[in-house]
Amino acid sequence: MTTLDAPVRTALERLLDPHSIVVVGASADPAKRGHQVLRALLEDGYAHPVYPVNPNADRILGLDVLASIDQVPAGADVALIAVPAAAVPGALRECAAAGIAGAVVLANGFGEIGAEGADLAAALAEVIEETGIRVIGPNTSGLLNLTSGANLVGLPDVPRGPISVITQSGNMLLSLVNDDRAAKGPGFHAYVGLGNQADVRYDECLVELARHPETGVVAIHSEGFADGRSFLTAAAATVPETPVVLLRGGRSEGGRRAAASHTGSIAGSDAVATAVLRQAGVELVDRSDELAVVAAALATCVPIAPGRTVAVLSDGGGHAALAADAMAAQGIEVARLSERTRRQLRRLLGSAAAVAGPVDIAGAADADPMVFAEAAEILMRDPAVGLVLIIGLYGGYHLRFDPALREAEDAAAGALLALSAEYDVPLLIQSCYASLDIANHDRLRAGGVPVLGSIEHAARVVAALQRRGRVRADRARRSSLLLPPPARPIPGSGVLDEPAARRALADAGVDVGEWTFVRDLDAVGAAVAAFGRPCAVKVVSPQVIHKSDVGGVRLGVVAATASEHAAAIVDAVTAKVPGARIDGMIVTPMADAGVELLVGATRDPVFGPVLAFGTGGVLVDAVRDVTFRAVPLTESEAGQMIQETIASRMLDGYRHLPAVDRDSLARFLVRVGDFVAEHPEISELDLNPVIASGSARTPVDVRIVLAENPAGDRDE
Amino acid sequence: MTTLDAPVRTALERLLDPHSIVVVGASADPAKRGHQVLRALLEDGYAHPVYPVNPNADRILGLDVLASIDQVPAGADVALIAVPAAAVPGALRECAAAGIAGAVVLANGFGEIGAEGADLAAALAEVIEETGIRVIGPNTSGLLNLTSGANLVGLPDVPRGPISVITQSGNMLLSLVNDDRAAKGPGFHAYVGLGNQADVRYDECLVELARHPETGVVAIHSEGFADGRSFLTAAAATVPETPVVLLRGGRSEGGRRAAASHTGSIAGSDAVATAVLRQAGVELVDRSDELAVVAAALATCVPIAPGRTVAVLSDGGGHAALAADAMAAQGIEVARLSERTRRQLRRLLGSAAAVAGPVDIAGAADADPMVFAEAAEILMRDPAVGLVLIIGLYGGYHLRFDPALREAEDAAAGALLALSAEYDVPLLIQSCYASLDIANHDRLRAGGVPVLGSIEHAARVVAALQRRGRVRADRARRSSLLLPPPARPIPGSGVLDEPAARRALADAGVDVGEWTFVRDLDAVGAAVAAFGRPCAVKVVSPQVIHKSDVGGVRLGVVAATASEHAAAIVDAVTAKVPGARIDGMIVTPMADAGVELLVGATRDPVFGPVLAFGTGGVLVDAVRDVTFRAVPLTESEAGQMIQETIASRMLDGYRHLPAVDRDSLARFLVRVGDFVAEHPEISELDLNPVIASGSARTPVDVRIVLAENPAGDRDE
Repeated sequence: MTTLDAPVRTALERLLDPHSIVVVGASADPAKRGHQVLRALLEDGYAHPVYPVNPNADRILGLDVLASIDQVPAGADVALIAVPAAAVPGALRECAAAGIAGAVVLANGFGEIGAEGADLAAALAEVIEETGIRVIGPNTSGLLNLTSGANLVGLPDVPRGPISVITQSGNMLLSLVNDDRAAKGPGFHAYVGLGNQADVRYDECLVELARHPETGVVAIHSEGFADGRSFLTAAAATVPETPVVLLRGGRSEGGRRAAASHTGSIAGSDAVATAVLRQAGVELVDRSDELAVVAAALATCVPIAPGRTVAVLSDGGGHAALAADAMAAQGIEVARLSERTRRQLRRLLGSAAAVAGPVDIAGAADADPMVFAEAAEILMRDPAVGLVLIIGLYGGYHLRFDPALREAEDAAAGALLALSAEYDVPLLIQSCYASLDIANHDRLRAGGVPVLGSIEHAARVVAALQRRGRVRADRARRSSLLLPPPARPIPGSGVLDEPAARRALADAGVDVGEWTFVRDLDAVGAAVAAFGRPCAVKVVSPQVIHKSDVGGVRLGVVAATASEHAAAIVDAVTAKVPGARIDGMIVTPMADAGVELLVGATRDPVFGPVLAFGTGGVLVDAVRDVTFRAVPLTESEAGQMIQETIASRMLDGYRHLPAVDRDSLARFLVRVGDFVAEHPEISELDLNPVIASGSARTPVDVRIVLAENPAGDRDE
Repeated sequence: MTTLDAPVRTALERLLDPHSIVVVGASADPAKRGHQVLRALLEDGYAHPVYPVNPNADRILGLDVLASIDQVPAGADVALIAVPAAAVPGALRECAAAGIAGAVVLANGFGEIGAEGADLAAALAEVIEETGIRVIGPNTSGLLNLTSGANLVGLPDVPRGPISVITQSGNMLLSLVNDDRAAKGPGFHAYVGLGNQADVRYDECLVELARHPETGVVAIHSEGFADGRSFLTAAAATVPETPVVLLRGGRSEGGRRAAASHTGSIAGSDAVATAVLRQAGVELVDRSDELAVVAAALATCVPIAPGRTVAVLSDGGGHAALAADAMAAQGIEVARLSERTRRQLRRLLGSAAAVAGPVDIAGAADADPMVFAEAAEILMRDPAVGLVLIIGLYGGYHLRFDPALREAEDAAAGALLALSAEYDVPLLIQSCYASLDIANHDRLRAGGVPVLGSIEHAARVVAALQRRGRVRADRARRSSLLLPPPARPIPGSGVLDEPAARRALADAGVDVGEWTFVRDLDAVGAAVAAFGRPCAVKVVSPQVIHKSDVGGVRLGVVAATASEHAAAIVDAVTAKVPGARIDGMIVTPMADAGVELLVGATRDPVFGPVLAFGTGGVLVDAVRDVTFRAVPLTESEAGQMIQETIASRMLDGYRHLPAVDRDSLARFLVRVGDFVAEHPEISELDLNPVIASGSARTPVDVRIVLAENPAGDRDE
């Protein structure tokens, strides 16, 4: 029921911030979820109406119980469905009839248990389709909005703060809450458990939760996306404003098996997922023990300004070296301080202090912890410094040396907070005392400065804050990852013959080099002569896919003997592939020496069309040097793609090979990417090898495979 | 003073378990180390004599103070030297004169501050050399023996247990103690801070501490070894009985700079260090937050029996998938359970439980936590299972669901301990409640079962216990890493000419394939004819190192035109290298097609001679596929070496290449390794490429560089 001046709230908005809650299957039994939820709503001070529904109870926890869903006042926001799986479709129909916007379905026993649950999963899908009710779950732990007290999980005492969580696993929420509590993290605003994603998906929740002003970061645990491409575009649109941290479960073979039996999620390629989610600006964590800590830091710290790096301030050389190692493992350099900064530090810390790399205050704080603030200020004034990382024993000097230092440490904490705000340079603290109850640590945390126990977690946070700075600065150079409208489809299906594949690329403006297709074998000599250089001659036959394996390729062919070579190819191919129809020969000039690259594309079952780039040629299966990006991609993204391969090491004049123009190569990748993005009917594309030299690129072999049924394949 | 029936204790034995302690520089000032140490000795109940020395005090903390070192009764075990750096050499001479076995020197200001401290470092070295007194430090925090109460660090309340620690950084001890306390770990037996290693080294302390019956594991943090080879051989000899865990500081460029200014340690190659320390059986940790946790597990858990793997028992599929992912990242597979085991689990847990990969008990423990023990017993009976890893919420059911479950959880903990002992299968627990005070967790920990908060730490511990099982089982197949007595040196110095290099290898029984050296250019044709196949012809000239760059190589030469090729080589070389002396030509038959490998050797500045193996040929600098082992190595070690390279992927019939006999290749590596081990004068050896095919190997190019001064180079 909206009034004239209130904007109409969407169903998802109402689900994630409900102003009325129906509990279907309310219970008087304290062990039942239908009871725990009512208790949690009362205890968490939920200020809106709650309607318990149960035909066999009058009052539960002081609330009047309705006998059936149709007694609920029309237009409630959310129903929590706490009834057994078999009763779920019927209950949902009643909810829809009562004008309830959305439902949270707890029961398991649907798609995740395989064939047995398939009928129920289909019945559920049918209700959703027919009624339009938005459903979270099934097989979920529920949802939570701590700001409004809408606690549909029944978990008590979750600390309130800026982290919004989306998972498929309720136990992950428990882990995150305990991790956040152990680390004295900033706490949570909202949680959605998506379970099997029968309806509501990650991308929708991401966009909706990012709109909540209380959300400082969205932390996600996922075993699979119902619509991976929608997640990519939602993330790409969200991250410039709200950071997104993601932990994927089921990346390994063993993990995939576990995830499949858990939520029935589809598996794509791990390498593709990693690459395209990074491309979308998502901060991926590899370790479950990093999710809470990285999310907390992204919610409370300003990012590292692009171009700046990290100053390490340590007490003792041992920790300084380990911090530098941990940052190097994350690809982060320790800041090279200006001579002026070093001079000021030496004046402050004495000649024993190391100031060349990590700054070692070498005991200068044993008597006066305020030295940390003074050193931090010198560092923050240096324009090379984008973050100050204090490592080692910070905050525990009163424990180690003299209880009288407690006040000085508290004062130093205050000074550090003021400096970080004044210079807009983030501050991060690692201390071996982080797990103890220390007032100056708590003061820093309350001011948004993480105080962590692990050097490696600190380095991981630095990496996240550095990438965060770049994501914000680069927004104009990043792809929206939206797929363009499809172009006119390439005719045919299955493996295209090479002339058709080359023609399709050339028609789309992709440079495939010089080539010609000769149907009449007697004309091969003339074709070679026309190029005026030795050529490669290759058979074109629908029965022959691996041409060189059957004698279908001759290299370095000159005009004089071209006909003999063509005839020899025909003999070899017809001998090895009896009945092969020979359509003609492709003739291409031999490429000059160059770097052998791989340019390809596939359709990932989760994320859709992606471009592949790496080392090409015969070593491709041994070196396994390939990286991915979702298409369409930008030139800047193509440049990064090139940069992260082993092939990149061979592009600037490797051994006797000519240098390759990286910008021109990046533009080529963008163009191939656009081509694939516009042609959803392409299921595979392979240019391998592409011989690159200067700004020239010669695709030696060109292969395109069209899907048999492109529409059905799309976005699955 | 020894009696007739007591064995004579070595100086190091006396240092690490002193029966009398002299404190030189004893102080009445509570802020001074010379005071803190006295207090700690009294508080920790040190039961042997303590002799404070200070010319200006009579009594400190109730102890009589001696005016000078010469008043100490003859033959004390240890002197703690708490005087300024400049007074150290004099004090040490007096200690030696008083028959004191060893000293711990706290002061800094020696080698680690560079040129300024060099004179003092030299004076210190001289005293050590002349008097034979054993010195720990300088620039150290001291040493600690919690069993005897010999607390020379002055750190109070260190928990007592099985971990013995050797570091270069006193702050690392603080970190370890705090990490162990936060994780409720098993505690410490001893600690030695080696500082600058002016005398006592890691290898000596490792051997000595491993001899203490209280030591269950030796945990090491090091920024460099004064004698890396001695550490390798000490570790190889120690690890079959006592596990050794090592965290290296200064592995990265930035870390190296920090370490150099900290302890002045020498840096070798990180890749070499990693490889050879693993070869010695040392458990390397990459993350500082893993050192305490891995050491604790190795001290308290039985290893995983070789050939067995890990069963995961999880409540909830989300954690199960993450655990499988974390183990995959460590190269560990989840156990494939027998059909019998799966049947039993299904009977216990119901049909909702997943039992194919990780076992998901799917809520079966919500009402009765004893289900964990019952499931664990089924798993432990399966001979595929070498460890049971419980993941997720274990031990917190009474917090989440019902306080009445507390007793059942405590009983389950007891049952699990009994099962682990009965079946001799280690048990490991990860719980999101690990940081809370939970009685059943503490009971498990007291019984030697780690209860960890991080899934990734748990996976890391599993990896350590798996390697530990293999280290113990493989002991007969591991190299002692002892260098053999030197063979008769290869004559010459610097870069050997190729015939000399091939001859040296062939003389040592290393198969370098067919080759001949022809001085008379007219005889090249006959040499080619004698091989009866096309050959490679290469110039031999002391002025030419990169032969092919100056036209010094011709490939596929046949007898008829051999003289012309030889003449052309001479022309090309003399044109490009005016004045080059041409000694002759090397003639080798062209190798059949094969896999191009790299076999090489270098002398690491820290660890001495090491063998290198990987992908050879032109891609060597791009692919950077190389692995190392210290020599001499065993055939089993050579086989592992081959296995861990990218080249390994090409050995079993890659594309059109013939398969390579791995055993024969491994024997070849062993033989090259023996050759390098016996010739300390070799500073570099390169066989690149070696073309391998079947059991044949053709070293295409052979290069040996002799050191100018091999003796001085040895073991530095």
